Amino acid sequence: MADTQRTPDAYEELNDLRMSEGARPLYEHVKKFIAETVQPMSEEFHRLGENNKDIWSYAPGQLECLEKAKDEAKKQGLWNFFLPDAETGEGLSNLDYAYIAAELGKNSLASETMNCSAPDTGNMEVLERVGTPAQKEQWLKPLLEGKIRSAFAMTEPGMASSDAKNVSMSAVLEGDEWVLNGDKYYISGAGDPRCKIMIVMCKTNNGDDVNRQQSQILVPLPYKGVTILGPMHVFGEPDAPHGHMHIRFENVRVPKENMLLGEGRGFEISQLRLGPGRIHHCMRSIGSAEKALDLMCVRGLAREAFGRPLAKLGGNTEIISRARIEIEAMRMMVLKAAKAMDVLGNKEARVWISMVKAMVPERVCLIIDQAIQIHGATGVSQWTPLARMYASQRTLRLADGPDEVHHMVVGRSELRKYEGGVEDPALAAIWRK
Amino acid sequence: MADTQRTPDAYEELNDLRMSEGARPLYEHVKKFIAETVQPMSEEFHRLGENNKDIWSYAPGQLECLEKAKDEAKKQGLWNFFLPDAETGEGLSNLDYAYIAAELGKNSLASETMNCSAPDTGNMEVLERVGTPAQKEQWLKPLLEGKIRSAFAMTEPGMASSDAKNVSMSAVLEGDEWVLNGDKYYISGAGDPRCKIMIVMCKTNNGDDVNRQQSQILVPLPYKGVTILGPMHVFGEPDAPHGHMHIRFENVRVPKENMLLGEGRGFEISQLRLGPGRIHHCMRSIGSAEKALDLMCVRGLAREAFGRPLAKLGGNTEIISRARIEIEAMRMMVLKAAKAMDVLGNKEARVWISMVKAMVPERVCLIIDQAIQIHGATGVSQWTPLARMYASQRTLRLADGPDEVHHMVVGRSELRKYEGGVEDPALAAIWRK
Amino acid sequence: MADTQRTPDAYEELNDLRMSEGARPLYEHVKKFIAETVQPMSEEFHRLGENNKDIWSYAPGQLECLEKAKDEAKKQGLWNFFLPDAETGEGLSNLDYAYIAAELGKNSLASETMNCSAPDTGNMEVLERVGTPAQKEQWLKPLLEGKIRSAFAMTEPGMASSDAKNVSMSAVLEGDEWVLNGDKYYISGAGDPRCKIMIVMCKTNNGDDVNRQQSQILVPLPYKGVTILGPMHVFGEPDAPHGHMHIRFENVRVPKENMLLGEGRGFEISQLRLGPGRIHHCMRSIGSAEKALDLMCVRGLAREAFGRPLAKLGGNTEIISRARIEIEAMRMMVLKAAKAMDVLGNKEARVWISMVKAMVPERVCLIIDQAIQIHGATGVSQWTPLARMYASQRTLRLADGPDEVHHMVVGRSELRKYEGGVEDPALAAIWRK
Amino acid sequence: MADTQRTPDAYEELNDLRMSEGARPLYEHVKKFIAETVQPMSEEFHRLGENNKDIWSYAPGQLECLEKAKDEAKKQGLWNFFLPDAETGEGLSNLDYAYIAAELGKNSLASETMNCSAPDTGNMEVLERVGTPAQKEQWLKPLLEGKIRSAFAMTEPGMASSDAKNVSMSAVLEGDEWVLNGDKYYISGAGDPRCKIMIVMCKTNNGDDVNRQQSQILVPLPYKGVTILGPMHVFGEPDAPHGHMHIRFENVRVPKENMLLGEGRGFEISQLRLGPGRIHHCMRSIGSAEKALDLMCVRGLAREAFGRPLAKLGGNTEIISRARIEIEAMRMMVLKAAKAMDVLGNKEARVWISMVKAMVPERVCLIIDQAIQIHGATGVSQWTPLARMYASQRTLRLADGPDEVHHMVVGRSELRKYEGGVEDPALAAIWRK
Repeated sequence: MADTQRTPDAYEELNDLRMSEGARPLYEHVKKFIAETVQPMSEEFHRLGENNKDIWSYAPGQLECLEKAKDEAKKQGLWNFFLPDAETGEGLSNLDYAYIAAELGKNSLASETMNCSAPDTGNMEVLERVGTPAQKEQWLKPLLEGKIRSAFAMTEPGMASSDAKNVSMSAVLEGDEWVLNGDKYYISGAGDPRCKIMIVMCKTNNGDDVNRQQSQILVPLPYKGVTILGPMHVFGEPDAPHGHMHIRFENVRVPKENMLLGEGRGFEISQLRLGPGRIHHCMRSIGSAEKALDLMCVRGLAREAFGRPLAKLGGNTEIISRARIEIEAMRMMVLKAAKAMDVLGNKEARVWISMVKAMVPERVCLIIDQAIQIHGATGVSQWTPLARMYASQRTLRLADGPDEVHHMVVGRSELRKYEGGVEDPALAAIWRK
Repeated sequence: MADTQRTPDAYEELNDLRMSEGARPLYEHVKKFIAETVQPMSEEFHRLGENNKDIWSYAPGQLECLEKAKDEAKKQGLWNFFLPDAETGEGLSNLDYAYIAAELGKNSLASETMNCSAPDTGNMEVLERVGTPAQKEQWLKPLLEGKIRSAFAMTEPGMASSDAKNVSMSAVLEGDEWVLNGDKYYISGAGDPRCKIMIVMCKTNNGDDVNRQQSQILVPLPYKGVTILGPMHVFGEPDAPHGHMHIRFENVRVPKENMLLGEGRGFEISQLRLGPGRIHHCMRSIGSAEKALDLMCVRGLAREAFGRPLAKLGGNTEIISRARIEIEAMRMMVLKAAKAMDVLGNKEARVWISMVKAMVPERVCLIIDQAIQIHGATGVSQWTPLARMYASQRTLRLADGPDEVHHMVVGRSELRKYEGGVEDPALAAIWRK
Repeated sequence: MADTQRTPDAYEELNDLRMSEGARPLYEHVKKFIAETVQPMSEEFHRLGENNKDIWSYAPGQLECLEKAKDEAKKQGLWNFFLPDAETGEGLSNLDYAYIAAELGKNSLASETMNCSAPDTGNMEVLERVGTPAQKEQWLKPLLEGKIRSAFAMTEPGMASSDAKNVSMSAVLEGDEWVLNGDKYYISGAGDPRCKIMIVMCKTNNGDDVNRQQSQILVPLPYKGVTILGPMHVFGEPDAPHGHMHIRFENVRVPKENMLLGEGRGFEISQLRLGPGRIHHCMRSIGSAEKALDLMCVRGLAREAFGRPLAKLGGNTEIISRARIEIEAMRMMVLKAAKAMDVLGNKEARVWISMVKAMVPERVCLIIDQAIQIHGATGVSQWTPLARMYASQRTLRLADGPDEVHHMVVGRSELRKYEGGVEDPALAAIWRK
Repeated sequence: MADTQRTPDAYEELNDLRMSEGARPLYEHVKKFIAETVQPMSEEFHRLGENNKDIWSYAPGQLECLEKAKDEAKKQGLWNFFLPDAETGEGLSNLDYAYIAAELGKNSLASETMNCSAPDTGNMEVLERVGTPAQKEQWLKPLLEGKIRSAFAMTEPGMASSDAKNVSMSAVLEGDEWVLNGDKYYISGAGDPRCKIMIVMCKTNNGDDVNRQQSQILVPLPYKGVTILGPMHVFGEPDAPHGHMHIRFENVRVPKENMLLGEGRGFEISQLRLGPGRIHHCMRSIGSAEKALDLMCVRGLAREAFGRPLAKLGGNTEIISRARIEIEAMRMMVLKAAKAMDVLGNKEARVWISMVKAMVPERVCLIIDQAIQIHGATGVSQWTPLARMYASQRTLRLADGPDEVHHMVVGRSELRKYEGGVEDPALAAIWRK
């Protein structure tokens, strides 16, 4: 990579992918807490929800059960540790967080229990960095306390959001209010009855500088003019009650003060948010891949056909080997991208982030798909988590920039090294041919 | 292939993949009927079902709407034409049916409207071939008239059904009754309130000949001792009200006469059924792939990013090209397998059937996946049929023998040609090295 | 495909892929001749050449041996049958020729023995169609008689020839002579001492119409100003004495009459040539794939490791199955493209030709690669034909338009169907979302 | 991986992939030496060899030119540093060597110039570890001084060497002599006139313990009874004068003292050798992949078609991105396997070695293949190193255990974790279904 332009010391440091001494106790604590508290709680939680009539609410007892575990987490100090370099939180490095996030990826309620779940994490980070004292008091505080939840409204149904500049939702300043009009969809978490605040990406300016046309504005929920049209499904799943909502904004008026950072600075805030967020997803994806491989091995040994366990029939042992190799390679890449963010900053680490975002969800999808195949029909059913895991990883290939955009970032960065002309005489000799 | 052992004439005939003159009017009629009757009916049907509270029933008006279209089909003579070489039905060849089935594959209600939908087709074919006059009167007649629906209970949750001999559900003769005990799952169609009869695969005999241990027995629905435990999901979808049900049989007693063909002949009946059935699925898969490619092109031209339509960005034009090439190759293979069944019979055509079954759903999954990618998040949502199409094709890779089993059939058949020793002197010379 | 715009009759005819009654005796005759005459001759031919010091000549006895077989072919009437619809030759349809070419593809000397080898076939076809009587007398006659051989000089070392308009070799009319200057490379066959004539693609005109800037000119060999700089290798192989030569043209003066068809009509002649030529290669590729699969099976059964034949270890049986499936799919596609050329003409069949050219060599490479893997180190050695077969198929992915260009042709043709706007209301509904 | 059984400390240490402080000066020195000395020397070397008549000798001046560079390397202290933990050599860790080897992989003469080239490295390591003082004096000393070269005779033409126990060459003790009979092939380096000693793998014992039937015996070259039958080609390349020779042993009598370590300990010596050797190859493969990507970018920017540089046409930018991602992932995996050898020892690191050996050459082949594609016909020619690089990496997929065997090692190791039964209750719950 562009590493060659850096000092050898920074280059070397990038390859030290060890967890810090300081983080290890937290890491071990989190693993223990997941095993002892989250795992039994999540079994109870799902059991309580089994026959819930209104899927867009929590069944009686569910929230109590979750809150109890959250209280326990808070008590044990396992709370908000996602937040890097902050007064609040543990101030974990991205690298240390990567190790922990892989563990969080193995249980779907683990992140929330420790107040480390998306999209709240990104929203809290944004508010912590760019929020005014009043905004912090009103929204960041209850978020940090786990009292409310939040959403981030970016994607629009009528636009190719692979191009981040494609935003059509308008926000016009009328007097002391911003007036918002437009549709957003795939607003994850907006179905949750506890979701009280959204950050909404808007187009505020039609000026020439395409990097200054967007703004991010706070919109409470529920709110006048804001209509939830319905949930977007993901491979047939509404993911209720969290939900990925389709929301219409009709003359939604919010006070001028709800603007974050300043008009035209929406793109700037996104940059802040997207680095860590993309990596957090990929860290959890490693956990997901590990789980899929676990299930593949267990099922492959437990079931027999033609007189042998499935895991030893045909190409299955090689499939297991390839899954293990991919997981180890992905793990190292995720750790390295996290380290690059720590050492070089989010901006310089951008190519590493794109490499990981383009690499990981695509390959994890394949591993889950192979785990499905070895399970037979049970693999696509609700009896294993595999179909839902697949849907989630498949969707990740579309979210926060589709694979194609990240490959474009990486490919162009590679070509840029050469665009000043070729200097290596050996290469130059070939070039002339 | 083993073609070399056949007469040149049969070999040649296999490559005449034209629809017969006689079938063309029916083919054109079906296309017209789908466009003019099924298409508007299915829009109405889905609209009526939109807010149905009990997903395991039909909403008011839905069945009337469907029945009206069925009556129209019957009136126009578009009825039961799936049934080959039969007194009833059109007596279409497999090849001619392949052309028509590709059209049926483009609308999810088309098959049922013309009484050509699975699993009824396979069940009717079995009853027509091996049913007693009484069985025909009681079950085949109303099925042929579209008055009831049916199911086929084969797959079991506790067994690797890739090995067709893995059946544990027991049927024991006590006096004049067979007594059935065990679990079956993924019984497609058993959720439909109109489903009145199941064919159930049982183990009747623990003798030495593994090909004679299975029997197929008729079990009405609802029935004493038969409990529907719940629906199996497919990537989060219950496919209600059709459903893929999990059913428990506890001391289910049916009259001795409900045995099909005779004790120990279950495997034999399966052979009869599985050839055409597997091919029918693959024929419809071609239609599904065509639809995915249509959607990919339309979306790819309609959406712009970075100043160009998505279809012309990056590798997307090549992705479209590869999809077209795969579809044409798959189409020819499906037609050839159908022709092989016509010319050589189901048994000799077995390798062709396995080639197509191992080839088609896997590649159609990829095409649908690429169509999803070009749609962004909308691709996995309920706004396009793509996620549901994907779930359906993905499941097909597990049903009626997983890909691996079909590859085993094809690979072994290839190797069998050589196992008598090598005769070609050029090959022999290399072999010795 | 665009089939939908054609009459149903033409569409149907495309799917009749049977060899014609008339061609079958020739087909059987060719197979017999290869087995009885070419096979023993080629063993003798290679034995004679084994210790040849000057690889750019034929060893004593080699040409005699080859000529004897050619005489025999001529005597038996197996001569020039590649030439379609011509007074000379058999007037075979492209479809019939496809069957025969697959057989020719299994022995590297078979084509030449029956005067059906590239690039002579293309050159003869061009001369036959556009040559003047004098050109025919001087060059076509001895070519048709197998007395001389020829070459086609198109590709240039300094240009991306994926874009067919990239030609820099200049031809300027000075008085009664064309004066040629420039470099060509990969001129296949120009190393053969029997090669006496080249067709050279030149740039004659810098006018605005990019389709009228090229011309094709006859240049004898050897000739004043024409220097063979050396052979281009293909994966280390010079393919001597045939060779793929790098040739420099310095003030090469040929009579005005050596122009083919007329100034600026070079592109037009190429279109004539490239359709059948591309298909002939792909037909032979099927033969090559069959041979690779043969070798894979034979070796896989003959060698044991860990107590079982390699063919039954790990994923190898599935690899064999996939190879068989690919071969059958490719075969049908090649036959269909040949039929399309017969029924629709080269121009309308262009998308079919591109589909086959983009599909076949890439997949045959994979099959050969897997055959190599099962042979271990012997697979890359001179003891099997596999490495040479691989080099040849790999090169085909670059020749006559690289894969990428053919995918562009197919993808654009697919998109063109939609560019007038979308009419299907079901598609239109989705499009609006 | 099995990491979970180790102490957290060892696990953590595995992820510190930084080069040691001590090795950095050597690393920088090697890079400088390659640029300043090896690069110009290798241009001269290849120029001198261009018209060499006898490819199995060195052309006048070639060896002088090489020796001069070797002397310079020795003088600068860049000599034998491959040898780990030895009195001689630098005592580099495997991790430090991995960084340096990636640089060596970019120039085909770099390794030899610094006396770090295969198979001498493995042979020296074996002699250093298990040789008697007399063996060391006679063979190790001149090898360490770069005065002679050596070979390792393992693979046999008549055996599937994927199974390391497949050895048929017999060695029988007659009096004070071992008498060897049999064929070996692909003996790399045995064509070099400077090759004076071979280590030969033999079958000495037909007893029951399959791990004790093999021995390794020293055979000088030339020697009575040893006939070089000829060179084995690699994709048409004899790689002269180094060569991959086919050698026949007929009643070859060597003194009893030529046995290494002891009768029946051949397999044990192989284990010693194969770990580092396999990794050295893979380290150099990273360098090869980097070179291929360099060439891909340079060519892709320098050539235009359809008005744009090839690198920005169609899917090419994504191909470049995927190559960069794969290279970074492979690099981390190679470094981690090297570190595992350092921390855990060759035996425990075995799964990591197999992961890397199964992963790297296969993917580097793909990257080189794509570099070829973007070069057009020049890519397969002698004008770029790509075809030769491809041949070399392709062969690596067969050498030192084919991919399939390494996947078997990895897959079985993964399954072994579960074979004691499943403990995780969440997994167990699924298992029961």
